[in-house]
Amino acid sequence: MNQVVKQKRSWSKRLEQKKKRMDNVKDLVNGMMIPTDRIVDVLEKLIRPHDRVVLEGNNQKQASFLSEALANVNEKELFDLHMIMSSISRPEHLDLFERGIAKKIDFSFAGPQSLRIAQMLEDGKLNIGELHTYVELYGRLFIDLIPAVALVAADKADRHGNLYTGPNTEETPTIIEATAFRDGIVIVQVNELTDELPRVDIPASWIDYIVVATTPYQLEPLFTRDPRHITDIQILQAMMVIRGIYEKHEVQSLNHGIGYNTAAIELLLPTYGESLGLKGKICKHWALNPHPTLIPAIESGWIDSIHCFGGEVGMEKYVAARRDVFFTGRDGSLRSNRALSQMAGQYAVDLFIGSTLQMDKDGNSSTVTRGRLAGYGGAPNMGHDPGGRRHSTPAWLNMMTSDDPLARGKKLVVQVVETFQSGHKPIFVESLDAIDVKKETGLAIAPVMIYGDDVTHVVTEEGIAYLYKADSMEKRREAIAAIAGVTPVGMMHDPKKTENLRREGLVALPEDLNIRRSEAKRSLLAAKNIEELVQWSDGLYEPPDKFKIW
Amino acid sequence: MNQVVKQKRSWSKRLEQKKKRMDNVKDLVNGMMIPTDRIVDVLEKLIRPHDRVVLEGNNQKQASFLSEALANVNEKELFDLHMIMSSISRPEHLDLFERGIAKKIDFSFAGPQSLRIAQMLEDGKLNIGELHTYVELYGRLFIDLIPAVALVAADKADRHGNLYTGPNTEETPTIIEATAFRDGIVIVQVNELTDELPRVDIPASWIDYIVVATTPYQLEPLFTRDPRHITDIQILQAMMVIRGIYEKHEVQSLNHGIGYNTAAIELLLPTYGESLGLKGKICKHWALNPHPTLIPAIESGWIDSIHCFGGEVGMEKYVAARRDVFFTGRDGSLRSNRALSQMAGQYAVDLFIGSTLQMDKDGNSSTVTRGRLAGYGGAPNMGHDPGGRRHSTPAWLNMMTSDDPLARGKKLVVQVVETFQSGHKPIFVESLDAIDVKKETGLAIAPVMIYGDDVTHVVTEEGIAYLYKADSMEKRREAIAAIAGVTPVGMMHDPKKTENLRREGLVALPEDLNIRRSEAKRSLLAAKNIEELVQWSDGLYEPPDKFKIW
Repeated sequence: MNQVVKQKRSWSKRLEQKKKRMDNVKDLVNGMMIPTDRIVDVLEKLIRPHDRVVLEGNNQKQASFLSEALANVNEKELFDLHMIMSSISRPEHLDLFERGIAKKIDFSFAGPQSLRIAQMLEDGKLNIGELHTYVELYGRLFIDLIPAVALVAADKADRHGNLYTGPNTEETPTIIEATAFRDGIVIVQVNELTDELPRVDIPASWIDYIVVATTPYQLEPLFTRDPRHITDIQILQAMMVIRGIYEKHEVQSLNHGIGYNTAAIELLLPTYGESLGLKGKICKHWALNPHPTLIPAIESGWIDSIHCFGGEVGMEKYVAARRDVFFTGRDGSLRSNRALSQMAGQYAVDLFIGSTLQMDKDGNSSTVTRGRLAGYGGAPNMGHDPGGRRHSTPAWLNMMTSDDPLARGKKLVVQVVETFQSGHKPIFVESLDAIDVKKETGLAIAPVMIYGDDVTHVVTEEGIAYLYKADSMEKRREAIAAIAGVTPVGMMHDPKKTENLRREGLVALPEDLNIRRSEAKRSLLAAKNIEELVQWSDGLYEPPDKFKIW
Repeated sequence: MNQVVKQKRSWSKRLEQKKKRMDNVKDLVNGMMIPTDRIVDVLEKLIRPHDRVVLEGNNQKQASFLSEALANVNEKELFDLHMIMSSISRPEHLDLFERGIAKKIDFSFAGPQSLRIAQMLEDGKLNIGELHTYVELYGRLFIDLIPAVALVAADKADRHGNLYTGPNTEETPTIIEATAFRDGIVIVQVNELTDELPRVDIPASWIDYIVVATTPYQLEPLFTRDPRHITDIQILQAMMVIRGIYEKHEVQSLNHGIGYNTAAIELLLPTYGESLGLKGKICKHWALNPHPTLIPAIESGWIDSIHCFGGEVGMEKYVAARRDVFFTGRDGSLRSNRALSQMAGQYAVDLFIGSTLQMDKDGNSSTVTRGRLAGYGGAPNMGHDPGGRRHSTPAWLNMMTSDDPLARGKKLVVQVVETFQSGHKPIFVESLDAIDVKKETGLAIAPVMIYGDDVTHVVTEEGIAYLYKADSMEKRREAIAAIAGVTPVGMMHDPKKTENLRREGLVALPEDLNIRRSEAKRSLLAAKNIEELVQWSDGLYEPPDKFKIW
């Protein structure tokens, strides 16, 4: 053997730490059950200063009882936590930093709190690790952000600690796996304790503590879009996408973003799509939350399968009644899984389509704008060409523009935008705010959501730019400018060039796709409001009250 | 509501099918237990012609009892299956196709069967869907390759059907999730039934049938490299990698391939690495199977954490005794997870380093060569720059060569090769065999493992080519040729240009890194054979007999 001297050390320090902390609360808890009214005391003892703590707060489901409890600990006892959160969604998420309980944050999305977080960053009240995509944040939980404590939410637990997460399984198993199998402490808030679970989503031996919350976890209907608000322009864009992209490239598997423009596409499949004879040819397999606006397409037999990142409030009974389409457990309810759906959405689908707040002349885009640190969730993950993909589909192969013997296909990454936001702010800008945000926040790189070289198509109310066909940066810019309207980017464009671009197939206007602008009317929507979605669902879809106006 | 007419249909056809099949075997089984000697009869009834069947056979763990049983069904009853397998490893995997039981295959890796599969493909005896990476194959299980039946392996089950997969959890949970939650049938072979499991890895409500195998599942020590076979050239390369890449770019998190060249790096960390003062500065976080050759680095305190794709035969006790480093369950044994580790290996580490059988002048490489259809497992997934990554690390930022305000970092993708394989076959070739394989097999694209534009560094016994610094294809080719020795690619190189490349930092020879070739000796290895690895481990590592020569 070698001259090297072996270290003498304990190899179970994490476990010893854990046991010590658990020992400190043994008089406060009943086995693995934390009495609801003792939660603050218990958290103060189970969590220690500087810990890495994963607090579940993803798109929809929030461990709201636990986040409120954490915001109520004594900041002299518990401070400088390093929080890891998919989504910063609730006011107390940032109160943690105001009060000094937490200091550093690694996160992916901060929609509802994006203004406040930008302000707090400017005021030096928090310290941002990085703006992540979901999957890279999950990945780091197993590499260099291994958690000491996980605070998560489930629907039900049994007396042994087995969990039922039901339709909203989302990222709970992934967070728990990273924590439980590294001697971290897993604390779960549940809506109720029960003798028998409908099914087991997470086994008891992964869980340390259960606490029954005073109120059920917060759950937002984030993917519900009332068709009432879909405009004629969005319908025009949806028609262009169906003809000029889905049909043209034979797109069979895809992910839709959350906006009204994609909701319009979903509602045109059974009407406009049907009239084009496309049923069974496009849009069969989805990675997508259970969008209510997909109900008419499902009912019309368009959809073979949907794998979900998370659930959607009100869609529970509908999903259970359509189990040939959705992933469901033996109990009939949805099984979602955000990590696996993101993996599938990155690697296994033909197309990602989303929107943005700004796009520059090269096609780079971001939802991070001055004063609004929103993050981007899963968009950069699904909105790029995955270099590790090797399997081919007609759409993927269709993106090949070279006869190089090593040429390969490309994922379709589509951005749909109107040339102006509400408030007359142009979407197409000379330079992204992200560049200034980088300087102001000290981020290591500018927070770009999707890079221009990954974007294959840009769709505006003017037409489609087929960027994958551009063989130079010059051509890419011309194609973008041609459909950028009267924005700063569009104004630089010489309209005479548009004719050439159309001939070369780099740009298509609605007329090039045989679409008459006058036909783009709300009457084409398979459902014009929430009530009609309910009718389509045979009454199975139960929209939250705020969407009910009848 | 709209004029569109709703389809009348059953929405639980998959479940009805499943119930019917289960009903057909109810006299053959005892609840969820299949008697060992009835397995062939039961499979004939639970699986139907043309089914999509996932058969677990990944790198190491093989559902060998079930694959043998499947190869023994009556091919007049059960035929034309569409097999989905991470790895084609056992003879009967291909017997299925010889006998007509299966017809089509989607897979990722076919190491031990790569010659026969190429022959069978030529003879028209099987039909390849695609050559995948692991993660895209898993992704497709949730999108367009949803399985009807899963045949998987676990260590133990209890009477309820809960599973203990222990150190070799690997991809079992992912396969089962895709099948169980789409009303597919999940059949698990176990080594034993027990009253109490050490821990629950997969809950009973995801499982349909358990069968106790006649012999434990096959498990290969695929990641064990006997240091005895490490050559001085590999030691020289390892020194160059440590100095010229890991130290230079401050690589903190990484994945190592399976070869002797990376084993050499692992065994030099506690000796050569220590002498450079690098402990605590590099190589702290790993996504990696429990390589026995990492034991000295672990024992010397180099390693903070390792997340594993799978287990490794003989490393069970060692891992359990080093739980601060590995992910382990409450029972102390390893928790591996191939899907999550691939995700982490793609998104969360600084560097991937591997080897190849051929590389062309542009840096494209492949392990698929004429007559050998090996596939590439996870290499293309981890061996590319993930476009959805947004977080920065020193190494990642170090790859930035532009001052564009939107510039970002890059993942380090390193290929280590000797210029010639054994048998005097050059590694550097004018054109990859993959191009001919594409033509001969009818694959849609040439089976490239790693594309040249993803490779940041190439290391040979001659030196390192820093490809990330090349600002043109011309420069990239020159840098590769400069270290390609007397291969066809190297012979095209004008040695006078090497001086310029060294000055520009595009190429480094050992002397540029202060490495004397004469120092690259086996005496530098922290362990020179398996016995010394056992000593390092305090006798906890128990190598399989075939590695024992003392």
